[in-house]
Amino acid sequence: MEDRKSLKIDVALIHYPVINRAGEVIGSAVTNLDLHDIARAGLTYDIGTYWVVIPDRMQQELAGEIVAHWTDGYGGTVNPHRKEALSLIRICSSLDEVVDGMTEKWGAKPYVLATCARCGHQTVEFAAVRKIAAGESGVLLLFGTAWGLAPEILHRADGILPPIRGAGKYNHLSVRSAVAIILDRLLTPAVER
Amino acid sequence: MEDRKSLKIDVALIHYPVINRAGEVIGSAVTNLDLHDIARAGLTYDIGTYWVVIPDRMQQELAGEIVAHWTDGYGGTVNPHRKEALSLIRICSSLDEVVDGMTEKWGAKPYVLATCARCGHQTVEFAAVRKIAAGESGVLLLFGTAWGLAPEILHRADGILPPIRGAGKYNHLSVRSAVAIILDRLLTPAVER
Repeated sequence: MEDRKSLKIDVALIHYPVINRAGEVIGSAVTNLDLHDIARAGLTYDIGTYWVVIPDRMQQELAGEIVAHWTDGYGGTVNPHRKEALSLIRICSSLDEVVDGMTEKWGAKPYVLATCARCGHQTVEFAAVRKIAAGESGVLLLFGTAWGLAPEILHRADGILPPIRGAGKYNHLSVRSAVAIILDRLLTPAVER
Repeated sequence: MEDRKSLKIDVALIHYPVINRAGEVIGSAVTNLDLHDIARAGLTYDIGTYWVVIPDRMQQELAGEIVAHWTDGYGGTVNPHRKEALSLIRICSSLDEVVDGMTEKWGAKPYVLATCARCGHQTVEFAAVRKIAAGESGVLLLFGTAWGLAPEILHRADGILPPIRGAGKYNHLSVRSAVAIILDRLLTPAVER
């Protein structure tokens, strides 16, 4: 396995465009624990940036206030661990902004890797992702809120990770759990299992 | 690896006794997403029962109302997947109650396995846990809210799982993320990684 420290992996949580239960394209609202849990998992596995993609201005402000409470406000003085985790967060409006930000950071366009609970075909294996993340361009891992990423995002991605299969037919993890499991699978050497 | 279907694993989320940031023993409050996320991960990995251990009666009622909204109320009619997941939950007052419940269910006392972000010594490996879970007595996986399980619970456990190490020194996953990662490590065959 590649040296974990050399892997360039960012995570983006998409609030628009995602789909609802009926498969319609929607925008979802910010969830406080999506910010906290994914930032904490992100720092645990040493990702670069945790991008929160949400076009709605009011929702951006809300997310910004939550983050600032921990990074600049009272929260961070009481719990510096949380401050450190939430400092990974960058709030932005679109996937384009994320791709531009990563390109600027690393000098090369990232490999955009979508996640999907329903997509079982032509997926990219974890080992292949580690190889890409060890190269010049980093990997941008996309996660969808609500019922998952909209087709237009899936079509735009360079690759899709295999769905997380548990032990049965049930296939409805929270996005918080899915991020934790995928970072662990990607970034923990197999020998520890 | 043992056949996943034959593994007997229950999860318990302990709200008392746990410790706070200062290491003092406290009781914590119910968190809505602890109920949802852990139930959804539990059903994904086909555990038996998700025990929510909370001695405070008011808190038990609150947890019961949240669960009932999804299992018997309006929530379940709108989202049957969520109903299915939250049906795994049993609310109870103490670890003793959980152990008695599991003993009654399986006819043998469970192997009580604690989790701990700080305990690095004399831990039990995942492969050993799978062997125990495939035997007569099931495995009860204990997770602590707040800053983790109190020493009296750790001392009472038959074994402790190794902490989840990420890529750096940061070691503050949410309990929701920790449950997801540990169920995935225990119950997903290594070949899928």
